[in-house]
Amino acid sequence: MQKLTETIKKIIEPDSKLTAATQSRLDNLTKPLGSLGRLEELAKQIAGITGKENPELIKKVIFTLAADHGVTAEGVSAFPKEVTAQMVYNFLRGGAGINVLAKHVGAKVVVVDIGVAEDLKPDCNLVIRKIAYGTKNMAKGPAMSRDEAVKAICVGIEIFEEEYLHGVDIIGTGEMGIGNTTSASAITACFTGSAVDTVVGRGTGLDDSGLKNKIEVIKKSLSINKPDANDALDVLSKIGGFEIAGLAGIILAAAAKRTPVVIDGFISAAASLVAFKIAPKVKGYMIAAHNSVERGHKIILEHLGLKPLMDLDLRLGEGTGGALGIGLADASIKILTQMATFKSANVAEKKE
Amino acid sequence: MQKLTETIKKIIEPDSKLTAATQSRLDNLTKPLGSLGRLEELAKQIAGITGKENPELIKKVIFTLAADHGVTAEGVSAFPKEVTAQMVYNFLRGGAGINVLAKHVGAKVVVVDIGVAEDLKPDCNLVIRKIAYGTKNMAKGPAMSRDEAVKAICVGIEIFEEEYLHGVDIIGTGEMGIGNTTSASAITACFTGSAVDTVVGRGTGLDDSGLKNKIEVIKKSLSINKPDANDALDVLSKIGGFEIAGLAGIILAAAAKRTPVVIDGFISAAASLVAFKIAPKVKGYMIAAHNSVERGHKIILEHLGLKPLMDLDLRLGEGTGGALGIGLADASIKILTQMATFKSANVAEKKE
Repeated sequence: MQKLTETIKKIIEPDSKLTAATQSRLDNLTKPLGSLGRLEELAKQIAGITGKENPELIKKVIFTLAADHGVTAEGVSAFPKEVTAQMVYNFLRGGAGINVLAKHVGAKVVVVDIGVAEDLKPDCNLVIRKIAYGTKNMAKGPAMSRDEAVKAICVGIEIFEEEYLHGVDIIGTGEMGIGNTTSASAITACFTGSAVDTVVGRGTGLDDSGLKNKIEVIKKSLSINKPDANDALDVLSKIGGFEIAGLAGIILAAAAKRTPVVIDGFISAAASLVAFKIAPKVKGYMIAAHNSVERGHKIILEHLGLKPLMDLDLRLGEGTGGALGIGLADASIKILTQMATFKSANVAEKKE
Repeated sequence: MQKLTETIKKIIEPDSKLTAATQSRLDNLTKPLGSLGRLEELAKQIAGITGKENPELIKKVIFTLAADHGVTAEGVSAFPKEVTAQMVYNFLRGGAGINVLAKHVGAKVVVVDIGVAEDLKPDCNLVIRKIAYGTKNMAKGPAMSRDEAVKAICVGIEIFEEEYLHGVDIIGTGEMGIGNTTSASAITACFTGSAVDTVVGRGTGLDDSGLKNKIEVIKKSLSINKPDANDALDVLSKIGGFEIAGLAGIILAAAAKRTPVVIDGFISAAASLVAFKIAPKVKGYMIAAHNSVERGHKIILEHLGLKPLMDLDLRLGEGTGGALGIGLADASIKILTQMATFKSANVAEKKE
């Protein structure tokens, strides 16, 4: 708990003076005022976050946290729960979507077992920080203890801090966990006050009856556990997941170290919501990569006041949309730091 | 004219069988069905365009065509017309937005003077294929002769074909021309039948009175010239621009060589509309990178039935949004060709 408290204390608001100064610099570059739209907003945000006039986004890291969910016993997913572990091996061999897209943008993928339901074979590229062999079935009681929730957040903080020692300029969030859209939906309903059936989607591909069952399971989980929306740790422990808790920790730790965080899909957004409820100042460090097909995702982004960069009908998770968002962030900083000014290029400015 | 006719003849529809076969392959990759959304659509489209099971997008080229517009005499732009030439020098020195974003996605920029109003200093990276020293003022008569329109299209075809000799896997369109949103707006109104005031935007930054004047100038240009919407060359010559004609030629030539074309902003979209009116089969080769701030852009995309990949409030042109679109196209092909299958990765498939 001490680690969490210390981390929260270190989070300050991004530097708004530098954000404003960056707009002036962008306005001197050889382009009509504001004509690079969202890229300009991104460059400003990243300058304010890092506190650097000329940020460099060289070291890019995507954290993909894997964990299982006891609630899969209720038949809430179209895929068997064994797929969580199988996909971890796929990440380690480089065959998953996140591997391809991370490589595309020049990012490293850090794969973490924070709660997979089986013992995974040791691998030099796998970080094993298992809290438990999956969460308990939240439709029958709390998914984890409050102590486990704090531990999982602290694992996230530690994983970020370890990576930070090697240098990190920007991070992306990612996850793998069969059943985790069920947990993310429950978290969304609880924190935003939205009706359950408005925040639930088909996950990896449920049919109509599967979707109906998923909604019922979430309603049951909420009514049995009665999570207190004013107590983020209560919500996280009762209806959360280990990967969601770990990602919340990573987001908090990144903000404490003035590192921009690119939020991936629905699960990552749920983790960012948890982080926000724990420490509201963290919001300024978040960049919403995209709006996914999962309906709850948009509701979270609206609740947080985050505008997604893209809308590509993605619903894979793993950090895939986050990788693409890191690519845009990179582009925005190159615009800020590599373009010529009107003066240096001898280009006439706008008529007065 | 013969070159144009020959090029049109070579354009065939993309291979729809290969498009369908590519979806089956995507469905075997380790991800829920369709979960990479627009990236999957892109990969399919590119397979169908190229006719290759495993397309490679190594050689990326953005064509940035520059030309001046006589209609600037009517005060339709917020920037002086000298900026067209000044920006060409900026492109050649690598200081413009397109240089930065093209480098970001690994694309080469081919800069072409197809009608700048002054003689530019020779530069080994500048292709000089000037049709004339800018168009004539379309508010007083035709912008160019029909012969010049055909010549400018053929220059585009030749520029593409020359680059094709060195190998081209995907192209992006780009332009620079003070006053060219006025021409693009007139083309849009003419071909789509939309009211002038619904297709006109502020270009590089007009104020309210400037915008009002621009609308009047476009209305006058249309009523004086009476372009025939059923005759693409008539429209192009009366209210077009040399860079728009050249880009239309490039788009047609790329389609004839089964090369995907990433369409940038409003001016590029107007060129793609011209190309479509000349040879409707060209449509299947187009990828709309983004939806810009210029209102007419969306109207063209809807008219063509193209769905933009991004909406980043861009309005710079030059090919900047196209560069970002090329990045996404690249990502989509890496997904298709580099991800593991369920079988190769030993991952269980969806429950039946």
